[in-house]
Amino acid sequence: MTIKLYELCGADNKMVFSPHCWKVRMALAHKGLSYETEPVGFSKVARIEEGESRRVPVLRDGENIIEDSYKIALYLEEKYPDRPSLFNGEGGKAATQFVTAWSQNQLHPIVARLVLIQIYHSLNDEDKVHFRTTREKTFGMTLEDFSATRGASSTDLHNVLVPLEAMLADQPFIGGQTPLYADYVVFGALQWLRIFKGQSLLKKGSKAEAWMETLLDMYDGAGRAATIAA
Amino acid sequence: MTIKLYELCGADNKMVFSPHCWKVRMALAHKGLSYETEPVGFSKVARIEEGESRRVPVLRDGENIIEDSYKIALYLEEKYPDRPSLFNGEGGKAATQFVTAWSQNQLHPIVARLVLIQIYHSLNDEDKVHFRTTREKTFGMTLEDFSATRGASSTDLHNVLVPLEAMLADQPFIGGQTPLYADYVVFGALQWLRIFKGQSLLKKGSKAEAWMETLLDMYDGAGRAATIAA
Repeated sequence: MTIKLYELCGADNKMVFSPHCWKVRMALAHKGLSYETEPVGFSKVARIEEGESRRVPVLRDGENIIEDSYKIALYLEEKYPDRPSLFNGEGGKAATQFVTAWSQNQLHPIVARLVLIQIYHSLNDEDKVHFRTTREKTFGMTLEDFSATRGASSTDLHNVLVPLEAMLADQPFIGGQTPLYADYVVFGALQWLRIFKGQSLLKKGSKAEAWMETLLDMYDGAGRAATIAA
Repeated sequence: MTIKLYELCGADNKMVFSPHCWKVRMALAHKGLSYETEPVGFSKVARIEEGESRRVPVLRDGENIIEDSYKIALYLEEKYPDRPSLFNGEGGKAATQFVTAWSQNQLHPIVARLVLIQIYHSLNDEDKVHFRTTREKTFGMTLEDFSATRGASSTDLHNVLVPLEAMLADQPFIGGQTPLYADYVVFGALQWLRIFKGQSLLKKGSKAEAWMETLLDMYDGAGRAATIAA
């Protein structure tokens, strides 16, 4: 039975950019599971698998449909216990939630502010309308005004990554000697950035940059092969 | 064989306030291990157990002398495997390093700026000289100038705790359903704050406040029994 991953895409449907989808791509690669991808534009996401208010990523595995990247990782861990673990135990599973909360609340806002306009320009016309309408309602201002007044810099990025940089002085991955799902959580955010900025804004010569490069090369370069925004 | 914990103290040697020592106190309580405490002032720390440049906490367990809170936790985990685990597996052990890097680099600077002057005033005369000399060399300015120009607010504290607050919406502890060493890492920093500020600066009604209250009550209220700065 083929696993199918529904992923967010741009006007070029080979360009899948959602950080949450990249977490799952890396989790599937970590487990050595093959899958087919079904790219979906913003305006079509809610109706995936006959849903009403879906959010990507959505994974179908046989009769099972799972939504939310962490739930998908937990599902893969339970369903494929003989494959390499994504968590290395219950303590790892729990602490991953802290890493995720940090990534979501500290790192994602910086990356989102860096890539907002590029995301918009990468979409097809229908998704552009959807993206602009939903985001401008949330921000209470136009995308352009938001970017002009709330933009972020590479210095903001370097500052927010200080905990990762500090930890990498002690061990090569958040997972320890090898990467685990917690690494892919942070990787997802930085891959999102990489896809829209063409090249890394990470500090040159930093441990975070080296860590990212290592992850991009893993699993036959699955991360490095990502289609970059035009 | 009695375990001995060397801890940093104020002029009142019952007032042990180092966040790193509190991590170890909680780890010892978690393991259900009894110990004796040996409070040491700043100016005497380097010479603990005939050392030359020691830093607290230092733990003596029989012939073993261990320095550094994380190394002590690893030691306790290995030496007392039949007691409740501090990490729940290798993944937890590794991810704890990320939590520690976050705590050390994001949370500690805020707390340090909040309590700096109170620490100074809590010390005996000899330690006051040591503290002032070493810190002013690091800061390049007097303690008073540093506090005046680099002070932190409760808003800074609430902002830096956003990842903890967000995670607590999903699970009660960083360790999952029960606290692990990663929880004590963050607890240590907030206990340090609590000892010098007399009452919590945590946001009223927040999940972080409730989490802290729970930890203060655990192990027969070992945390709540801390001697508070006068």
